[in-house]
Amino acid sequence: MNVRDLGEFELIDTLAGAISASNRQGIQALEGSGFRMLRSIGDDAAAWHSAEGVRVFTADTMVEGVHFDLSYTGWRDLGWKALATNVSDVAAMGCAPSFATVTLGLRGDIPVEGLLEMYDGMMRLTDACGGAVVGGDIVKSPAFFISVALQGFARVGDQELLLRDKARPGDCIAVTGNLGSSAAGLKLMTEGADESGLASCGYFRDAHNRPMPRVSEGESLASVGVRCAMDISDGLVDDLGKLCRASGVGAQIHTLMIPVDDRLKGTFPSGWLNLALSGGEDYELLFAAPESVIHSAQQVISTPIKVIGEVVGAEKGLTVLDASGNPLNINAGGWDHFRRS
Amino acid sequence: MNVRDLGEFELIDTLAGAISASNRQGIQALEGSGFRMLRSIGDDAAAWHSAEGVRVFTADTMVEGVHFDLSYTGWRDLGWKALATNVSDVAAMGCAPSFATVTLGLRGDIPVEGLLEMYDGMMRLTDACGGAVVGGDIVKSPAFFISVALQGFARVGDQELLLRDKARPGDCIAVTGNLGSSAAGLKLMTEGADESGLASCGYFRDAHNRPMPRVSEGESLASVGVRCAMDISDGLVDDLGKLCRASGVGAQIHTLMIPVDDRLKGTFPSGWLNLALSGGEDYELLFAAPESVIHSAQQVISTPIKVIGEVVGAEKGLTVLDASGNPLNINAGGWDHFRRS
Repeated sequence: MNVRDLGEFELIDTLAGAISASNRQGIQALEGSGFRMLRSIGDDAAAWHSAEGVRVFTADTMVEGVHFDLSYTGWRDLGWKALATNVSDVAAMGCAPSFATVTLGLRGDIPVEGLLEMYDGMMRLTDACGGAVVGGDIVKSPAFFISVALQGFARVGDQELLLRDKARPGDCIAVTGNLGSSAAGLKLMTEGADESGLASCGYFRDAHNRPMPRVSEGESLASVGVRCAMDISDGLVDDLGKLCRASGVGAQIHTLMIPVDDRLKGTFPSGWLNLALSGGEDYELLFAAPESVIHSAQQVISTPIKVIGEVVGAEKGLTVLDASGNPLNINAGGWDHFRRS
Repeated sequence: MNVRDLGEFELIDTLAGAISASNRQGIQALEGSGFRMLRSIGDDAAAWHSAEGVRVFTADTMVEGVHFDLSYTGWRDLGWKALATNVSDVAAMGCAPSFATVTLGLRGDIPVEGLLEMYDGMMRLTDACGGAVVGGDIVKSPAFFISVALQGFARVGDQELLLRDKARPGDCIAVTGNLGSSAAGLKLMTEGADESGLASCGYFRDAHNRPMPRVSEGESLASVGVRCAMDISDGLVDDLGKLCRASGVGAQIHTLMIPVDDRLKGTFPSGWLNLALSGGEDYELLFAAPESVIHSAQQVISTPIKVIGEVVGAEKGLTVLDASGNPLNINAGGWDHFRRS
C-alpha cells in the first residue's frame, strides 16, 4: 500500500498507532526528569508541564537523493539516522533528548510499509537514547524528506553546557570513538563494494546508517567540567575549523593520534586518513579541555576518548601534522573530494 | 544572487545576520515570561534556561507547488504564513509562541534576496505575535520547502489548556473573526481574478497570505474558562468534525450564523457559503463552551466572537442547518471541490 492510497489523517493514525507503545515508555522515562505529558499526538500541539531547567532545541533534515538513497539505506536505518543526527546535536550540548516533532514530505508512491519500518527505526533510537516523538506534520511533496525538530534538557546547570566557543589555548583536543568508518560505509555502498563479500562491510555500513549519538558521553563530559564540544558531522577538519572560529583560537592535531578502527586501515590502506580527517557523519564528540579534565573524563566514560592535539593561539591557525611532524596542506589537501559540495 | 552562489554557511550567516535585531527583541520579550536565552543560532542547538510551566510544541510545513506558489505569494507573505500557521496552532492551545526552528529545503536557483524578504516576513510576524527564530537547518532539495517547528508556553495552569476533546453536549460552538476570506483570496489569485481590479481583491489576498494568528484571543479564551478549541485550517466543517470526534460529541451549526465579511457575500453571491464552510486556512479559532463562558469571552476580547451552533450528543452527528432550518447534505455537499484532496 502506498501513501496515495491512504488519506492524510488515516496515515497519521496508522503511524501514530504504530509508535504509541514505544513512545509511552519514552514519555514515562522523561517524567523522572521533571516533564509531565499533557497531550501527545492528536491536538493542535503537543503539551506538557515542565520543571525549571536548561532546555535545548535543534532541527535537522534529510532529503532523498541529497542525504540518503533508499537503494543503500534501509527504512529502519533512515528512521534511526533522521532522529540520531538531531540527538547527536543535543548530546553535543551535554544534554539528553526529550520531545521531537517529525515532519514528512511524501510522494504518493512512498510505501506505507516503508514508513512503518522508518518509525520503528526511530523508536529503536529513542529506546536506546531516550526521548519521544510527540507530533509533526505530513505533507505532499515532489521530493521525499524527513525534517526532525528535537528538544533536549540538561541535568547540569546553565554554566555547564558544552559550547563551541569555550576552547582556550593550552586545552587538549579530544574525540570519542573512531573516525572515518561512516564515510567508508558510504563509499563502499555508493561504489558497489558493499556487495564484494568484504567481511567488514557490515561494520562500515552500520557506521554510516546507524550512528550512535553520544548522549551519556556528552552528559558525562559536562559533569566532569568539559565546557567546549561539538559533534562531528561535516568531518573532523571541517568541524574543528568551526570550533576554532567560534572560540577565536587555532589548533594543531596529529594524524598519528587520530583514532580509527583497524578495519578502516585494513580496507583502505592508502585512503583511511582522508576518510578519518574529512569523511563526516561520524557523530562522535569533538571537545577541548585542560588535560586534567580530559583525564577525569576518561575515568568516568567507558567509550574510548583520545587526545588528538592541542588548542593554540588564533594566529597559528589550524594545522594537521603528519607522522613525520610535517604540516599537511589541508586547504589544498587530498580529501576535498569527500567534502560536501 | 542565488543560493547556489553562496555556501551553506555563508547563507546561514547572511540570514542569521538579517534577523538578529528583530530576534533579539523577541528573545528579550520572552525573558519576562521566565525564559533566559543562553545560545541562539550558531551552536549545535539553541539553549535557554526556562522557568517551570506548561509548554507546547508543534510543526507545520509548506511545500512549493503544494501549499504555495510564488506566482501569487510574495516572499514576505511566505515567511509570514510559514510561521503564522504554527503560531496559530500554539494559539489554539491557549498559549503564546516562544522559540522556533526554521528548516529550508532549497533549490540552487532560489534567490537569496527572496529568502531575505521571507525572513523579514517572519520577523514581522514575531513582532506582531511574539517569539523568536533560534535555529534550524538549510538543505539542498529538488523541491523548495519551509518546515517550521515552534514551541509555546501557557500563562495559565495545565488544567486550562484549550484542547480538542473537551466539548460537552449543551456547549455553544463559536468562532473568532470571519470565515471564507482566505479561500476567496486563493480562488481569486489562482483563477486570475486578482488582476480584475476588484476593489476587495487586496483584502482577500491578504486574508490568504497574511493570516493573523489569534494569540491574545486564545490566551483570553483560556483565562475566562474556555477548555475546548482548535484553529480552522482545513475548513470549518472539516475541523468541527475533528473536534467532535475528539470529544465524542455531535454538533449542529446554522449557516445564518456563520460570520463572513460583507465583501465575501458581495463578491461571491452564490459561492460565499461554501467558501465559509469549507474553504480552509482561515486560522480563526473554533471553540466550544457553556453560554455564560462565551459571554465572558465576548466581554474581554475585542475581536468579534460569534456563536454558530451547539454541541449535541454523538449519536446526532454533525449537522449544518440552512437558512430554512433544513440540514445540508455535507457529505455529498457542494463544497467538496474546495477540500484538499
